Amino acid sequence: MDEEKQPMDEDGRDAIIISKVDIMKLADVYMLMKTDMIKIEKEIERSVKADHPILKEASLHLLQAGGKRIRPIFVMLSGKFGDYNIDRLKHIAAALELIHMASLVHDDVIDDAELRRGKKTIKAKWDNRTAMFTGDYIFAKAVEQASFFKDKDIHTVLSKSMAEICVGEIEQIRDQYNWDQHLKTYLRRIKRKTASLIAISCQLGALAADASRQDQLRLFRYGYNVGMSYQIIDDILDFTGTEEELGKPAGGDLLQGNVTLPVLYAMCEDESLKHEIHQFLSTNEREQQDITSVLDRVKSSGGIEYAHSLSKRYLQKAYDALEMLPDIPAKKSLHQIAKYIGGRNY
Amino acid sequence: MDEEKQPMDEDGRDAIIISKVDIMKLADVYMLMKTDMIKIEKEIERSVKADHPILKEASLHLLQAGGKRIRPIFVMLSGKFGDYNIDRLKHIAAALELIHMASLVHDDVIDDAELRRGKKTIKAKWDNRTAMFTGDYIFAKAVEQASFFKDKDIHTVLSKSMAEICVGEIEQIRDQYNWDQHLKTYLRRIKRKTASLIAISCQLGALAADASRQDQLRLFRYGYNVGMSYQIIDDILDFTGTEEELGKPAGGDLLQGNVTLPVLYAMCEDESLKHEIHQFLSTNEREQQDITSVLDRVKSSGGIEYAHSLSKRYLQKAYDALEMLPDIPAKKSLHQIAKYIGGRNY
Repeated sequence: MDEEKQPMDEDGRDAIIISKVDIMKLADVYMLMKTDMIKIEKEIERSVKADHPILKEASLHLLQAGGKRIRPIFVMLSGKFGDYNIDRLKHIAAALELIHMASLVHDDVIDDAELRRGKKTIKAKWDNRTAMFTGDYIFAKAVEQASFFKDKDIHTVLSKSMAEICVGEIEQIRDQYNWDQHLKTYLRRIKRKTASLIAISCQLGALAADASRQDQLRLFRYGYNVGMSYQIIDDILDFTGTEEELGKPAGGDLLQGNVTLPVLYAMCEDESLKHEIHQFLSTNEREQQDITSVLDRVKSSGGIEYAHSLSKRYLQKAYDALEMLPDIPAKKSLHQIAKYIGGRNY
Repeated sequence: MDEEKQPMDEDGRDAIIISKVDIMKLADVYMLMKTDMIKIEKEIERSVKADHPILKEASLHLLQAGGKRIRPIFVMLSGKFGDYNIDRLKHIAAALELIHMASLVHDDVIDDAELRRGKKTIKAKWDNRTAMFTGDYIFAKAVEQASFFKDKDIHTVLSKSMAEICVGEIEQIRDQYNWDQHLKTYLRRIKRKTASLIAISCQLGALAADASRQDQLRLFRYGYNVGMSYQIIDDILDFTGTEEELGKPAGGDLLQGNVTLPVLYAMCEDESLKHEIHQFLSTNEREQQDITSVLDRVKSSGGIEYAHSLSKRYLQKAYDALEMLPDIPAKKSLHQIAKYIGGRNY
């Protein structure tokens, strides 16, 4: 715990140490947020407590899995720029976290339509369909949270963000295994997949607290750029992280045909890499050494460095967006979070 | 067309003819609703018009597929019991129809997790996942429609109904292939699967038109009972309908392990039927004659007659709920719709 509590210095060394621990715990560093975070956690738990055993089990399992709860943190901190009222904000925070959770559940739904045989087993019916409807249920619970508000803007922003996430998901499916996509295709995808919801967390936190329109916009811009930086780092870590750090083997994105920034850059630098990846993915018997060789080629291509530099550019834009905001403690906290997100090495 | 336009007499003979044609066309019989129905249709179309080609294609395909648009009709007719304003009501109608459409899309998502092999093909990734996220997208668009309203009750009712549909879907999965379930399990399932959304269509139509609380409740009760009757008839038709009438072979529910009222009754009457169904479903090579023999045993068990009598009881409750409502033309229309729903033979 001490390790987490120690103050962070400028060179970001501790940022690396702290970024080891869950950002949910990092939130505890801001003592003022701890109590309110628990309120939000309770609200989320109350919300998904279904009468139905399967749903209850699935939902609580998700909750216990934890997660960074980064969206609630952004909601709370942004709320500080207006009339901060946790009993209002917790519904925004819960709604956004539930939308995020629902999209995670649906991400786990895999598709094997082509491999289908005539007959479906009962067991088979459980997994995917149950996951899908559990996701739908959590989606509905997010909407229920939003129903706390009369403010039309809040509903509009929330529903638009839900729709955008779906478009992002569809794009991700379409872009999978497409090794000829452009940088802007990747950027638009991570915007819809990650940055939008973080931007909206900041915007709605401010909106629900009646912060000025101008500050709402600044916080939106901050969130968008932090989100972009965050996802780019995530995509880097899938190449550079160890299995222990990632909790899964490196190269997962590649194996799923998710074309991320480092490999995009690497393929531009080295046409033959595209061929090797294609070869690798089209064989059923994959050798660990094959993926390792692909990962090494990406790492040595300069793609990681390029991705880092792009991430830093977004981070700088996030700092710039903060500049014009009033100097309250929350501003410093948002600056710190951005620093960690940009600085985390794993 | 003449066949569809001819007036309906009391013995319900024409009801049978008219119930052949899409109920959306039946709505045209109520001339006053035709113009407003088009407004709703336009609103739904505008709402799902995505920038994204796949989503646009999938959504418009759904729209062109038509569908009965029975929920919008209930919204409009119920709105007549208050300050009828189509420009308000169309958003309720669109929201409910979109929720219905989304749940249809998700119903089509099949699960083959158990049959999965290590490698996923690009093609495979398309079908199910695309369907799922298209459904999510349409869900989000339904929420967007709801964001037109400041009334907290509307949001609460809508979100609760979305959640209930999901619980219903999960229950359906759980209850599949369970040949020992009770009647009340079946009834609770069709309530969540069908009756709730129809009840809410009536309730919200009245609510959005500021009808009296009492009339809202009556319309809710009407919708619930009509919905129950509607689903029971649907489940009957899956046994009694011809392939031409159903657009698919009879016995589809049985093949999917969906335990409906006629078969529930039949199994109570004849224990050995349960064994035959189990045998039939557990073999990969199914003979058409096998399913025919099962269907015949269900038909000769009296299960169809029992289901019809239960459907009629719900229908009567729907009529009773209408009784207390003020005598306006919409009341007669609701009565007629109930009559058709209960009377349709296919």
